[in-house]
Amino acid sequence: MAVESTLELGNNDERMKSDENLLISERSAVEDDDTTKGKVIESVEMTFKDIEIRSWNEQLTIRAFVVSVVLGVMFSFIVMKLSLTTGIIPSLNVAAGLLGFFFVKTWTKVLEQCGMLKHPFTRQENTVIQTCVVATSGIAFSGGFGSYLFGMSDVVASQTSDSDSPTRYMNIKNPSLGWIIGFLFVVSFIGLCSVVPLRKIMIIDFKLIYPSGTATAHLINSFHTSKGAKLAKQQVKALGKFFSFSFLWSFFQWFFVSDESECGFQNFPTFGLKAKENMFYFDFSTMYVGVGMICPYIINVSLLFGMILSWGIMWPLIEKKEGHWFEAGLKPGSFHGIQGYRVFTAIAIILGDGLYNFVKVLGNTGVGLYGQLKAKKSDTVLPVATNGENQENVQATSFDDQRRKQMFIKDQIPTWLAVGGYLAIAAIATVTLPHIFHPLEWYYVVIIYIFAPALAFCNAYGCGLTDWSLASTYGKLAIFVIGAWAGKSQGGVLAGLAACGVMMNIVSTASDLMSDFKTGYLTLASPRSMFVSQVIGTAMGCVIAPCVFWVFYSAFPNLGQQDSEYPAPYATVYRNLAILGVEGFGALPKNCLNICYGLFAAAIFINVVRDTVPKKWGRFIPIPMAIAIPFYIQQPFAIDMCVGSLILFIWEKRNKAKADAFGPAVASGLICGEGLWSVPKSVLALTKVNPPICMRFFARGANLKVDDFLKTLSR
Amino acid sequence: MAVESTLELGNNDERMKSDENLLISERSAVEDDDTTKGKVIESVEMTFKDIEIRSWNEQLTIRAFVVSVVLGVMFSFIVMKLSLTTGIIPSLNVAAGLLGFFFVKTWTKVLEQCGMLKHPFTRQENTVIQTCVVATSGIAFSGGFGSYLFGMSDVVASQTSDSDSPTRYMNIKNPSLGWIIGFLFVVSFIGLCSVVPLRKIMIIDFKLIYPSGTATAHLINSFHTSKGAKLAKQQVKALGKFFSFSFLWSFFQWFFVSDESECGFQNFPTFGLKAKENMFYFDFSTMYVGVGMICPYIINVSLLFGMILSWGIMWPLIEKKEGHWFEAGLKPGSFHGIQGYRVFTAIAIILGDGLYNFVKVLGNTGVGLYGQLKAKKSDTVLPVATNGENQENVQATSFDDQRRKQMFIKDQIPTWLAVGGYLAIAAIATVTLPHIFHPLEWYYVVIIYIFAPALAFCNAYGCGLTDWSLASTYGKLAIFVIGAWAGKSQGGVLAGLAACGVMMNIVSTASDLMSDFKTGYLTLASPRSMFVSQVIGTAMGCVIAPCVFWVFYSAFPNLGQQDSEYPAPYATVYRNLAILGVEGFGALPKNCLNICYGLFAAAIFINVVRDTVPKKWGRFIPIPMAIAIPFYIQQPFAIDMCVGSLILFIWEKRNKAKADAFGPAVASGLICGEGLWSVPKSVLALTKVNPPICMRFFARGANLKVDDFLKTLSR
Repeated sequence: MAVESTLELGNNDERMKSDENLLISERSAVEDDDTTKGKVIESVEMTFKDIEIRSWNEQLTIRAFVVSVVLGVMFSFIVMKLSLTTGIIPSLNVAAGLLGFFFVKTWTKVLEQCGMLKHPFTRQENTVIQTCVVATSGIAFSGGFGSYLFGMSDVVASQTSDSDSPTRYMNIKNPSLGWIIGFLFVVSFIGLCSVVPLRKIMIIDFKLIYPSGTATAHLINSFHTSKGAKLAKQQVKALGKFFSFSFLWSFFQWFFVSDESECGFQNFPTFGLKAKENMFYFDFSTMYVGVGMICPYIINVSLLFGMILSWGIMWPLIEKKEGHWFEAGLKPGSFHGIQGYRVFTAIAIILGDGLYNFVKVLGNTGVGLYGQLKAKKSDTVLPVATNGENQENVQATSFDDQRRKQMFIKDQIPTWLAVGGYLAIAAIATVTLPHIFHPLEWYYVVIIYIFAPALAFCNAYGCGLTDWSLASTYGKLAIFVIGAWAGKSQGGVLAGLAACGVMMNIVSTASDLMSDFKTGYLTLASPRSMFVSQVIGTAMGCVIAPCVFWVFYSAFPNLGQQDSEYPAPYATVYRNLAILGVEGFGALPKNCLNICYGLFAAAIFINVVRDTVPKKWGRFIPIPMAIAIPFYIQQPFAIDMCVGSLILFIWEKRNKAKADAFGPAVASGLICGEGLWSVPKSVLALTKVNPPICMRFFARGANLKVDDFLKTLSR
Repeated sequence: MAVESTLELGNNDERMKSDENLLISERSAVEDDDTTKGKVIESVEMTFKDIEIRSWNEQLTIRAFVVSVVLGVMFSFIVMKLSLTTGIIPSLNVAAGLLGFFFVKTWTKVLEQCGMLKHPFTRQENTVIQTCVVATSGIAFSGGFGSYLFGMSDVVASQTSDSDSPTRYMNIKNPSLGWIIGFLFVVSFIGLCSVVPLRKIMIIDFKLIYPSGTATAHLINSFHTSKGAKLAKQQVKALGKFFSFSFLWSFFQWFFVSDESECGFQNFPTFGLKAKENMFYFDFSTMYVGVGMICPYIINVSLLFGMILSWGIMWPLIEKKEGHWFEAGLKPGSFHGIQGYRVFTAIAIILGDGLYNFVKVLGNTGVGLYGQLKAKKSDTVLPVATNGENQENVQATSFDDQRRKQMFIKDQIPTWLAVGGYLAIAAIATVTLPHIFHPLEWYYVVIIYIFAPALAFCNAYGCGLTDWSLASTYGKLAIFVIGAWAGKSQGGVLAGLAACGVMMNIVSTASDLMSDFKTGYLTLASPRSMFVSQVIGTAMGCVIAPCVFWVFYSAFPNLGQQDSEYPAPYATVYRNLAILGVEGFGALPKNCLNICYGLFAAAIFINVVRDTVPKKWGRFIPIPMAIAIPFYIQQPFAIDMCVGSLILFIWEKRNKAKADAFGPAVASGLICGEGLWSVPKSVLALTKVNPPICMRFFARGANLKVDDFLKTLSR
């Protein structure tokens, strides 16, 4: 807190310099009107200088939270669907920003025309919505419904290598609405408390970038300029158009899927039946096309590379070894057969990549911290002592920076609240968590909560530098440490998974919050309103996410089956990780471990090459994490995403400006449309309304047989 | 011929007036630059005044005919496919014009860059290509492969009401390459001779419009202005893009059709299985979407109306009468059952509509002729006598008109050649036709050739006024007259169909030629080169069309079957018409005749209403002929065409100018792409390469049974 108060002193008189900056800003605003955003940013706050900024509690309007609930539910469905299918979740910030803007703007416009509008829609309110929606839908991800939490269930356990273990009963915890909500409430808030005191260091002193948070802030700022509002209107229109298309297309597809495993567009052998057997087909999913349009090209190319490497080369080769490397005639999903190779090779790459990035980000964090602290030390002496007289020594800050800093510092969140909150929640968790998960002893929880703040800080700092959240890596760490400590006979698998959940929630909400603070900083939203909005959003998420999961769980009985529509692939991976941690490598099929060693090393090697060769070459080297994902997912999402990339690529070739302006909106529309369709789809499934038609594909020969069969039927 | 020479005298001095017109033209050219085409036309020839017009034999270049052969083959495939599927053939003039321009332009550009170009590409050459291509592909239509000619075959005969007649053998003539080519050569040229002497009366004196011919001329003229060439380039690009899309899409579809009757996109139950049973589904045919984009809205709406009336209301109701109105358990295609109602009700409407239009057009022709001749009489006195001094009395003609008239009159086609040609061909036909069709006695042929020139003139005149060729109506007239005269035991059905062919060919080539003369007149192409091009095109068509038909006939063994991909629906209609003419109404199922009377009357009534109510209402009244077509065609082309209409409608709403400029090009691309795919498709079928996959659609219940069956198979 020493650092914080120091800076507040030096801040008061900096406003005097603003007139000079004004001139510069205005000139640059005229010159840069149509150039890159990067330059216009300099003068953003000048555009807004006449607009009153309302106090922090007035930024938290009822309309903002009503919109947040609506969008929160929708995005929770989308995130849930994504994490139960492939586990790749793109940034939904643009969609949340656009839709939030659209809803409130429509609302205020209607009120305005009725003469009932009391307060206009502000940037700060928009940021509040954004924060709240992202917090809500964030729980759908960090709640682990597609990973650790669902990995505790019987369905997933029966598909992993310990499916026939005698101590299996100890390691099973089937999902149920009650304990999930309780668990989430206990673990989700502590991350917020852990980093709140550090916000000024991260945002103002270290000037961390938080690329996603910054991008979101620019988006929101642009909406609230008149030119930006016009563009936003067009973007909303584009989003709406593709949203409708995506929704209607999903609706149309639904009619033809009377049986998930064989029927419908999702089984369309676009490149032929033989290719389809090896997962090479385009399944007409607009959602993944949209995801592909948002993800960087290199991610999609890496996915395709992984797909070709695994389903195109490795699995067909390994399948030929049936009877030699592994027993012949196993069940398709058995971990002692081909599925074992699929999952463990992927895990090897994920661990290799994770380890490399962990070391790298920690290293960077250390170096960065060291540099910052060193600079701070030599810095703090002058300005505080002379109180504004040595202005030349202070780095010349622009009008924007000053104004932002001023607003950011105005509303404080008392440190005692954060520390007290942390201790209180930790105490509650220590008491309650062992009751939810019997193998999770109370002292494991205490240990986690002792180390967590440090890790949360590391992650928030790393994320600010690289935009790469290592939450799941810290989670995996917890799985291994706690799992091994507990041991299998004491339910180490379940304890590991539960520990993963505790750890992931702290670490991930911490970096989310800091990213939102950055957004708030850039849009002049009060940190206090950001914090409250995050708390409310998290609370909503703790209720909404389990309910949404419950809808999926009830509507689709074969949720979690590897060959079904919702295989929840990461659930299997997390459970297998826990088993590995507890048991070691005993359960792996023959030669699997050797392949895993090779791929683990390859993952690290590729990363080293990526980081050492010049950037112009490095950006063409695939990312190991993305290569690993298609290994064990029996859906052709990599093809869909590459289609999305291809569309964007052609669009950019033809009209770069338009593609840049509308690409994210179109992609969001595609994602949200199919995502929202999962709501009525689940309702239809729950009410046992089944699609009436099956669109099937037969080889020529098989079709003749079916024809004969149908003729005998009709006779 | 008196009239012709009179006008030539009065023509020489009209050029003097051109300077005045020049001013007006130039001003209007500037003013109207971006307005409607209608106004710019006035000054078209000014744009070209510096371009040398080459002599008639130099307009007939080798490159023009090479391109004509290529396009002729392609369009023959398209026309053949269309007439074997639904019989609706849209105008391919735009496509022929664009593609002809594109090919020769590319060619000349390449030569130019090699420094080898001797003569630039001229409008006249473009018109020659256009004429030749349309003449070639015209034979694919007037050759009757989808109507009278194929109606003689055994396949069609076995699906009509005389399938069990004892004299059937007399009324069958199966297709064979030899006699078809011979027949076409004998009958196709006489039409050209019959109207050549009248060209000046029609084009210059009567100033007939020939809407299609005029539109084509405007298109060609526009290509050869620099602005037009730029637009044409963009149009060619649009055409090319949609051509590729349509071709690739058809190719993609092919893979999924291992069985035509059940598999593939052509059996896609877009609106559900129940709707599909009643022909309501979208079958993803880009060709018919393109056709729908070219046809006027009212045609497509009429088709949809006919579809709803017949497949939606009438057939389901009549099917319920099975066992009462007609025998239960008949074969699906039997004429004594539901198929009889389908075909004969359609015939009733077609005849009602045909009769009304025949009377109307003949009436208009008579009134028009009377008016023209009366005007001529009072006109001819002055200008001839005073030779240019009474210029004020002569209707002031624009520069364009003068120049066109001058070019049109320059090259003559001697009348003796036309008359001699007519007599010679008539003599040959009288000798040879009875050898090809034994029931067709030589005196029938003589009778036809005595009346034909008058009918050819009527049709050419009517077509010039209304763009509505009554060729098929005259053909039907011949069926009834000659068929009844011959009588059934003497092979009246075959004689009637053959007579229909003779009549249709004369009448249709006559109006085609006159329309081409109009195009030539407006593009300053010599009538002599037009005539030669038409002769060469016709000769090519007489070889190409039968060969193309032969490809289809060999490649698709069930050609002509009512439920197959190529049902050749008009073949059935024409044969049934012939049977009706010979036998009367005896063969019709119960109550069918009453329904037919009603619909016949309704067709006339609707036409009367269309023509009497104010035009703003009349244009919303459907066209009976179009209503009738879906009655007996077991394909959902009406839906496809309405989709085309809908696309064009939305496009026009959003950007009228762009839709007008590129709509026809896009439509042509869609038509030509799928049309061209029928070439490789036929080759694949001929070489017995079958599609590998069947995409099928089952009801939910049926799918479960199929699943069970497949499980027993794999056990």
